[in-house]
Amino acid sequence: MRLRNKPWAKDFMAEHPDVLINEEEGAVKDWKAIFNNENPIHVEVGTGKGQFVIGMALANPDINYIGIEHFDNVIVSALEKAIEAGKPSNLRLLRGNGANMEDLFKARELDRIYLNFSDPWPKTRHAKRRLTHESFLARYEEVLKKKGEIHFKTDNRKLFEYSLVSMSSYGMILKDVSLDLHAEMPEDNIMTEYEEKFSAKGQPIYRLEAMFNN
Amino acid sequence: MRLRNKPWAKDFMAEHPDVLINEEEGAVKDWKAIFNNENPIHVEVGTGKGQFVIGMALANPDINYIGIEHFDNVIVSALEKAIEAGKPSNLRLLRGNGANMEDLFKARELDRIYLNFSDPWPKTRHAKRRLTHESFLARYEEVLKKKGEIHFKTDNRKLFEYSLVSMSSYGMILKDVSLDLHAEMPEDNIMTEYEEKFSAKGQPIYRLEAMFNN
Repeated sequence: MRLRNKPWAKDFMAEHPDVLINEEEGAVKDWKAIFNNENPIHVEVGTGKGQFVIGMALANPDINYIGIEHFDNVIVSALEKAIEAGKPSNLRLLRGNGANMEDLFKARELDRIYLNFSDPWPKTRHAKRRLTHESFLARYEEVLKKKGEIHFKTDNRKLFEYSLVSMSSYGMILKDVSLDLHAEMPEDNIMTEYEEKFSAKGQPIYRLEAMFNN
Repeated sequence: MRLRNKPWAKDFMAEHPDVLINEEEGAVKDWKAIFNNENPIHVEVGTGKGQFVIGMALANPDINYIGIEHFDNVIVSALEKAIEAGKPSNLRLLRGNGANMEDLFKARELDRIYLNFSDPWPKTRHAKRRLTHESFLARYEEVLKKKGEIHFKTDNRKLFEYSLVSMSSYGMILKDVSLDLHAEMPEDNIMTEYEEKFSAKGQPIYRLEAMFNN
């Protein structure tokens, strides 16, 4: 991910509070009030430049989507896309740290979490930073409704192998697994920017749906 | 698998009762007496021409190995290899139907089951025939000790995807997964005949270790 400095990012973000919510402004908890409805809430952790979460919001108007991204210089690209898309009312971008799920959401508030092409943190000593490490799974479980789901895709084989074992050991149940997503592309697959570029190289994209067994 | 008719197969099998046991001669239950020790018992279901199970028996003399194969014309190749290998005392070939695990073994008798390159049965209506279908998992669970393991490898992506979901839904826990076994070949990987031929094509071999959570 290119992390070009964008000195205008903070001002630009502040100009669009109807789309972009900044964690720095305090704990965010009342998402039903923000969306002004009771629809299910799906969250993408690490939303990057936003193509996935915005595409999902446009395709599924009866679901509320929140894209969390840590970096100002990245989330402003998602913000630009959201403005171009007409600021869908079921979409919010959240500038914050996905590691602090419990500060961003109430317990049992979410219906689904998406992880797309998360940082693989390949070194063993960094395993705790992987977004499918058990410490993150515990946080997702806390904010997801019972039997809540994680949908995860990546091109990184090692991260996917790790995640299958980590989720299974945590007690999660695999509902669906694809080891070459683009070989039989599902009609409803919305690609991330990274996925679009990567898929041209012909290497497989891995995907899973896993459910907490609680 | 080539299934050339071998009219001499039955006679050849009958000549080597110290290695080859025929299910047709009656239910086989007393494996401790057969091996004359208390060592752990590992079973390969669908042992084919025997390279894997014989290689494992030679490499691990303190484990007893049983290779089950349904077809006379195939198991005689394994028998030939076992004779060449000097009839390891910790190896038996079992001419029988792996689907009838409960007729072949006592409850809680086995320590591990190997499935290698099992028939993928690609059509949905044949899913029940796949050796990782829940009905087979129930049989394996019956004859395996508590926390018993299944080690499974295949080149068939669809079968592997299916098996991850099937085992997980059954409540099994994935202990290890490789989505490209030969990319970092484990030193102790013993290849089947099929795996040896297939690996030259450069397509991935998938492998998992799963544990019953009982």
